[in-house]
Amino acid sequence: MSITVVGSVAFDSIETPSGKRERCLGGAATYFSLAASFFTGVRVIAVVGEDFGPEEEKVLTSKGIDTRGLERAAGKSFFWKGSYMENLNEAKTHITDLNVFGGFDPKIPAEYADSDFLFLANIDPVLQRRVREAMPQVKLVAGDTMNYWINDHRPALLEVLKGLNILLINDTEARTLAGEKNLVRAARAIQAMGPETLVIKHGEYGASLFSKSRNSTECFKVPALPLDEVVDPTGAGDSFAGGFYGYLASQQTIDAESYKRAMFYGSVMGSFAVERFGTERTANLTRAEIDARFAEFRSLTHLG
Amino acid sequence: MSITVVGSVAFDSIETPSGKRERCLGGAATYFSLAASFFTGVRVIAVVGEDFGPEEEKVLTSKGIDTRGLERAAGKSFFWKGSYMENLNEAKTHITDLNVFGGFDPKIPAEYADSDFLFLANIDPVLQRRVREAMPQVKLVAGDTMNYWINDHRPALLEVLKGLNILLINDTEARTLAGEKNLVRAARAIQAMGPETLVIKHGEYGASLFSKSRNSTECFKVPALPLDEVVDPTGAGDSFAGGFYGYLASQQTIDAESYKRAMFYGSVMGSFAVERFGTERTANLTRAEIDARFAEFRSLTHLG
Repeated sequence: MSITVVGSVAFDSIETPSGKRERCLGGAATYFSLAASFFTGVRVIAVVGEDFGPEEEKVLTSKGIDTRGLERAAGKSFFWKGSYMENLNEAKTHITDLNVFGGFDPKIPAEYADSDFLFLANIDPVLQRRVREAMPQVKLVAGDTMNYWINDHRPALLEVLKGLNILLINDTEARTLAGEKNLVRAARAIQAMGPETLVIKHGEYGASLFSKSRNSTECFKVPALPLDEVVDPTGAGDSFAGGFYGYLASQQTIDAESYKRAMFYGSVMGSFAVERFGTERTANLTRAEIDARFAEFRSLTHLG
Repeated sequence: MSITVVGSVAFDSIETPSGKRERCLGGAATYFSLAASFFTGVRVIAVVGEDFGPEEEKVLTSKGIDTRGLERAAGKSFFWKGSYMENLNEAKTHITDLNVFGGFDPKIPAEYADSDFLFLANIDPVLQRRVREAMPQVKLVAGDTMNYWINDHRPALLEVLKGLNILLINDTEARTLAGEKNLVRAARAIQAMGPETLVIKHGEYGASLFSKSRNSTECFKVPALPLDEVVDPTGAGDSFAGGFYGYLASQQTIDAESYKRAMFYGSVMGSFAVERFGTERTANLTRAEIDARFAEFRSLTHLG
């Protein structure tokens, strides 16, 4: 079943210890869509500027991603310039030009109305809520956010959380949102805000799934692939989300085991994303490579 | 088969957000021995002072731990006072009184000579090497160290590493020892120093096993138990080592699968250690509790 995703489509200039790239295609909705497209149909809602041409659109459409919700506006696309020279776990932002994204007012094509799955990528919670309310028919809603919204737009974010089934955030965001250092207690506090399922991403240490089971919280852990070179961490979290949610959306019925396998597929897609700059690796993947890496992840964690 | 362990037996005064304890039994050899004693015979080599009485010794002997190598010296036992008020992942040391431990010259009882397994807990590498050379018959040697020896006693430590089959250290220690931020590359560099097997402990994020397989490095990951309260982190790493090595020593034959299961038992024993102050939890465990938690760890990580 298909996923509608709303978020940013952008150009990124990135420098890491492995090299640099100017204006490569990026943005949370791009990474999410590409990763999810290996599992299910994806429909994207975003705004781009006049610098977004057929070549960029083809990266999406060649994966079967529906771009009818990609609005063209006068001006330039969202642009981000950052580096990871000191710390591969945290980007240092040099430039953030919102450009056309500053006036983003998501419009949902009528053709997207039968989507069963909605993903609210990291954007203003006011927009996340508007899209959520405009798609009342969806069966499962997942979302992401970041420290800026948690710290400075908390009331709007709390409204979004009430309508989420699944929240995917990282360690720092979880601790900030809950106001609690201990991750288990933080998870419980966040679940009480709305999302019954919480995925906390730990970067090179993998990710944890917290799900409600009767009155208790159940946990499941996946590792990250041990990599001897992380070329570019940009988009790892969004690619995780795409693999995770794309796999879920591809299942006829979703049970506890589906969530566990989704965690593995999330970690698999995150591991590919960081092997090359921008979308270079994910845009050129095959399903066979994904399945082989899934098996590799299993052998990293499973007893015989 | 039995393990001989050399290391510290000490008194610790500990403060954490959960409370405080004065002069509880501690030291790397204590934590290691208690954890390993659930799996195999353990023989301890250490020095204690006149403040170490029958009550303390009974904590060890009641688990069948051989204390004939526990030397009594005039003066007081090693004393450490520390707190974890700001950060449960890193102790702040207030007092380190080496006392009788300052003149420690390990003496190996003749009855220990048939040990097949040796564990060199975190002590001066000069002493680690002396014990290693005095026990040439052992079949497997594992060891621990810390940043102080890595930074200030590197030549002596490198000599020890040449004679180790297994090294167990944490993230920071691995990065410092290898002079390399990336943990996979750090692991490879450390393996080139001697130990063919390396266990890197990640605290609340679990641990990684790196083992040589033909010409490549194989990795296996275990999680840490998600705990909503870490009462006292003291001894978690030594308890991990005790569970890991104790399990290995209990096996008739040791293969790749044994190491994987040993990682789980290590993480299990580390998870118990932090649930109460000092040795309170480990000293009162049952094998049934250990097996139940092993099953819990499996369900935390394994797909159906």
